[in-house]
Amino acid sequence: MKVSIIGAGGLAGKELIGLLKNHSGFEIVHITSDKVAGKKLSEVFPNLKIQKDLIFKKHNDEIPKDSLIVLGVPNEASLELVPKLFDKGHKIIDLSGAYRLHDKEIFEKYYKLKHDSFSLMEKTVFGIPEMFREKIKNTNLVANPGCFSTSAILPIYFLGNLREKILGKMVIDAKTGVSGAGGRTEDISFSFTNTYENFKAYKILSHQHTPEIQEYSEFGLKDKLKKIIFTPHLLPVYRGILTTIVIQFDNAISEKNIEEEFKKFKQEKFIKFISEPEKVELKNIQNSNYLEIGWRFDSEEKVLVIVSALDNLVKGASGQALQNMNLMCGFEESLGLL
Amino acid sequence: MKVSIIGAGGLAGKELIGLLKNHSGFEIVHITSDKVAGKKLSEVFPNLKIQKDLIFKKHNDEIPKDSLIVLGVPNEASLELVPKLFDKGHKIIDLSGAYRLHDKEIFEKYYKLKHDSFSLMEKTVFGIPEMFREKIKNTNLVANPGCFSTSAILPIYFLGNLREKILGKMVIDAKTGVSGAGGRTEDISFSFTNTYENFKAYKILSHQHTPEIQEYSEFGLKDKLKKIIFTPHLLPVYRGILTTIVIQFDNAISEKNIEEEFKKFKQEKFIKFISEPEKVELKNIQNSNYLEIGWRFDSEEKVLVIVSALDNLVKGASGQALQNMNLMCGFEESLGLL
Amino acid sequence: MKVSIIGAGGLAGKELIGLLKNHSGFEIVHITSDKVAGKKLSEVFPNLKIQKDLIFKKHNDEIPKDSLIVLGVPNEASLELVPKLFDKGHKIIDLSGAYRLHDKEIFEKYYKLKHDSFSLMEKTVFGIPEMFREKIKNTNLVANPGCFSTSAILPIYFLGNLREKILGKMVIDAKTGVSGAGGRTEDISFSFTNTYENFKAYKILSHQHTPEIQEYSEFGLKDKLKKIIFTPHLLPVYRGILTTIVIQFDNAISEKNIEEEFKKFKQEKFIKFISEPEKVELKNIQNSNYLEIGWRFDSEEKVLVIVSALDNLVKGASGQALQNMNLMCGFEESLGLL
Amino acid sequence: MKVSIIGAGGLAGKELIGLLKNHSGFEIVHITSDKVAGKKLSEVFPNLKIQKDLIFKKHNDEIPKDSLIVLGVPNEASLELVPKLFDKGHKIIDLSGAYRLHDKEIFEKYYKLKHDSFSLMEKTVFGIPEMFREKIKNTNLVANPGCFSTSAILPIYFLGNLREKILGKMVIDAKTGVSGAGGRTEDISFSFTNTYENFKAYKILSHQHTPEIQEYSEFGLKDKLKKIIFTPHLLPVYRGILTTIVIQFDNAISEKNIEEEFKKFKQEKFIKFISEPEKVELKNIQNSNYLEIGWRFDSEEKVLVIVSALDNLVKGASGQALQNMNLMCGFEESLGLL
Repeated sequence: MKVSIIGAGGLAGKELIGLLKNHSGFEIVHITSDKVAGKKLSEVFPNLKIQKDLIFKKHNDEIPKDSLIVLGVPNEASLELVPKLFDKGHKIIDLSGAYRLHDKEIFEKYYKLKHDSFSLMEKTVFGIPEMFREKIKNTNLVANPGCFSTSAILPIYFLGNLREKILGKMVIDAKTGVSGAGGRTEDISFSFTNTYENFKAYKILSHQHTPEIQEYSEFGLKDKLKKIIFTPHLLPVYRGILTTIVIQFDNAISEKNIEEEFKKFKQEKFIKFISEPEKVELKNIQNSNYLEIGWRFDSEEKVLVIVSALDNLVKGASGQALQNMNLMCGFEESLGLL
Repeated sequence: MKVSIIGAGGLAGKELIGLLKNHSGFEIVHITSDKVAGKKLSEVFPNLKIQKDLIFKKHNDEIPKDSLIVLGVPNEASLELVPKLFDKGHKIIDLSGAYRLHDKEIFEKYYKLKHDSFSLMEKTVFGIPEMFREKIKNTNLVANPGCFSTSAILPIYFLGNLREKILGKMVIDAKTGVSGAGGRTEDISFSFTNTYENFKAYKILSHQHTPEIQEYSEFGLKDKLKKIIFTPHLLPVYRGILTTIVIQFDNAISEKNIEEEFKKFKQEKFIKFISEPEKVELKNIQNSNYLEIGWRFDSEEKVLVIVSALDNLVKGASGQALQNMNLMCGFEESLGLL
Repeated sequence: MKVSIIGAGGLAGKELIGLLKNHSGFEIVHITSDKVAGKKLSEVFPNLKIQKDLIFKKHNDEIPKDSLIVLGVPNEASLELVPKLFDKGHKIIDLSGAYRLHDKEIFEKYYKLKHDSFSLMEKTVFGIPEMFREKIKNTNLVANPGCFSTSAILPIYFLGNLREKILGKMVIDAKTGVSGAGGRTEDISFSFTNTYENFKAYKILSHQHTPEIQEYSEFGLKDKLKKIIFTPHLLPVYRGILTTIVIQFDNAISEKNIEEEFKKFKQEKFIKFISEPEKVELKNIQNSNYLEIGWRFDSEEKVLVIVSALDNLVKGASGQALQNMNLMCGFEESLGLL
Repeated sequence: MKVSIIGAGGLAGKELIGLLKNHSGFEIVHITSDKVAGKKLSEVFPNLKIQKDLIFKKHNDEIPKDSLIVLGVPNEASLELVPKLFDKGHKIIDLSGAYRLHDKEIFEKYYKLKHDSFSLMEKTVFGIPEMFREKIKNTNLVANPGCFSTSAILPIYFLGNLREKILGKMVIDAKTGVSGAGGRTEDISFSFTNTYENFKAYKILSHQHTPEIQEYSEFGLKDKLKKIIFTPHLLPVYRGILTTIVIQFDNAISEKNIEEEFKKFKQEKFIKFISEPEKVELKNIQNSNYLEIGWRFDSEEKVLVIVSALDNLVKGASGQALQNMNLMCGFEESLGLL
């Protein structure tokens, strides 16, 4: 299957090219980046091990017919491009946030953009295979999740019906490496001087992944969950997200209940349940497609503390994209990821 | 005033020696460390700028009479030493956790130690000047707080009577640099390979600073607060603690209420209230005695997010110790700290 | 071809397992580590992506017949094991320093070990394919180079006969990440506190890679080069070696001469000649098998400054080992490395 | 004595303000920065501990009469400002490179600037107190050295007449933290992504500190030294410079000769001679005015390897400036630095 990557000059693009390099079913035929158009792949990413070099095209250059398209462009560009490419019959993985939320008002509030192709949301599938595997197999349009989102949504979704017994708001405190927060830009916020030996929170009560986590954390429930409180932080590391989630249950819940729910997802290849949550660490998941989930339950207070970790560029972006591509094209889901 | 530092070979000891170096009222006359006894200060801490060198003595060597004593020894050693030194009439600052908690059972549960001199708790003052200034002036025994504790207790205490309107549990998510988590030890957990480009939680639901934060956060309230949920994490930085606190208020509370409460502590020299919580950063407080407090209030959901930051070795340990020493000896509270 | 890795619990072992994971010609059948014997691979290296798990055996457990053996054990153990395994007819790649030097006296001086199987040196080939490709194809015993060595030897060797015009001693100033200096040990020298935000030289004028660099830098010359001066340093990074070499030529040499010599090795797949030496950076070669070589020549002073960079775990250890394994077994040299 | 700092918004300015804060003889009365003019000192540098706040003025605002002036402005600005301020009778410390070199042609070649006030060079003293103490006491114009320069010049100068026995060129391989290479700028070269977990050389054979090191390394010698080869590198640390110098002596020299020369400078307060050069480390000198010098001599090969370390912001800039200010104003040289 031919693959075109529109907006391949960023970190997610680089990661995906690395993953697809030796994939037996996909062949990258077209990569674009207005910023480095005309340059060779080997020049832009010198440490990428490749057998066949490619040249970056411009975003507007013609995209090969019949190719699966991965979109790594800003939200505005996705809003505009997706409907056109969808109409031409391409299979599409959109890495942006443009087609993830089913509430138009909330989308326009958090993204500060008008959404003129909202009818496409009926055909879009949210790209977490552990939740929507069958739907992904049968769609032409996957909205790949935000990097924070998967780390928060899956541990909560895996609680199944126990989610009905949650009291009050869940508190989600997430910490990301620089590559998950925009590290390739010239922004002075990401200078060595402002990042190294430093730590801070950002976009408090306003991060655009908040409504995404809200929508998919309560997926499949009759009643909505109370509003989550999501606080992202910037770590002085290059890759990885670690998320700490605190949940108050009502008195009916026991440790065994939680174990049993999590056990239902035991066979998931990329999910590792860790009984000692102190052993969930960035270094365990960096450069892999794994999501680690550890937890501790205070049986007296009925409080569950979950710690989850993933690599923002792999399970948080390009690795998960490849899982979705494999599903859409009939390959084994883990092909190229193990 | 003469000062003896028992257990001066660690990071807090080094920091205190640095702070006292040019202090006009204190003179260090005695430093001990069994590990480096016999060695010179300038040899053990080469980058410490000093005019007069000192030699490390053994812990059991005689302590100069009339000297104020700072104890930088493990909890067990403090438990044993404090009653003896107190009886000899020394002014004492204990950096350990041995004399902070007023509930013996809880102490013995969290510290896994028997406490045989619990009657001393009546004479001990908890060493946060912003809370107990007058009492500190009039005591001979100060229990200096844990490094995490000040970062969590003060922002909550500063809420004053609003604390009565808190619903459910407060969630306290704290992140410390390596020097706050035991970084000078040979422990493989603190190797470069296990710490750099890594991040994880530790002592989930069991950290010994939890009951300390609980006790002093609710100080002065008629009703107790619900149990706090405290999760510490280890950052790949050398110094600094950043703590994120999420509080659910009932409907009566407005942003203005919070502002008014915080305003009451506006004149505190070492407290900086920051209206934009994203601007609270480790780099702002490293190597200083400042505590930064930023906050954002969701007026609809009545949720308050507080971000606080301090240097674990200064306001979290030796700087606060010096504040206390100044108060105990009649010096200006900020002497040597500005 | 079956592969056994003896001493697979270290960083080089992990790297090699990762590289061989999807190699079409090799299958790992046996891994040992006395320290973690009995544990699963997926447990010891959680972020290693693997399809088939393996269990660590003990060093003394029987090694599968007909398997190619990679030795990742200390020098003493290699000295003892290599002759036995060689006699059984195994193909062997030895990652240790035991069989690299052809001067017994110098070996015993630098390694402080007696060498009782020195006759094997006649059958051993030094494992730099760019120098000894044909010999490697026809040997059963390859001594894989030290991590610093390749970064220094190749740029000098590539100078060809120009080496005869070198005046005085070459000065080689090398800087390695922690994984190249022994970072997985409990050694306090590699604690976060002693490594992060720090930098220093080590083993000045005594590093064991010095004679190795000396021997192979002058390989093929009639006259010996003057003693090189080699100074290794420890960087606060995880992976990568950058080496700066200063060479004084006599008056006969021009920039063009150097270019022409280097051009002869232009077709080497894993060597990248970079005309602007400031563009040689660790980040270009991390996680790849590339060696970057940049240079600048002062035409007036006849001084050549070379900057080279490689990943100590890949081209400096396991990647080069795989190049050698491919050659020894008749596979394409770059198989599994691109 | 009143002090004005022109160009106080950079890292050297911040460092100097911190050092002068409690100095009994100097009082900062005027600080300028066009970039942050109008802002408070406490706002621009939040972690600076200060008792009295100041407001940044513009560079062109009137400078208080009779104040000692520290110039922290670019070379072009210093070229223009120094003659004017000198004529008004101010004592001046110039942190730029404008008045360090006594060879106009070399200055104009390395700095790519025309020098129209070169006659001032007769009145300028190069600001290394260990070399020019008496001259500094009697001048009104000190050119403070470049950060790399002191780390290279002093160890060589301390060799005294042994310098006459040096053969060939000295090789100086220097490594600096980001704050020494321009880290406060928006330059993408200093982004976290391009600096962390990275290392590279820069300005190979062209760094502007080269002629400065050359001129002062041979100061006092009858014969000139051969051209030094200077290669600076960028470390992923915040502060500190470590410099490795390799010197070939002729056969007449012994280890004892070197020891004896170094011994002559034993009483220097800010110089620490370290017999084991592996113990010279950035962490020993960070935040202090110390210069550490370690060395090893190969008696057979007559090669001396020197490792030196200093903090680029202190002994490499503002600390040395304060030493000079103390000398110029009759204070004890180390006042405010210990």
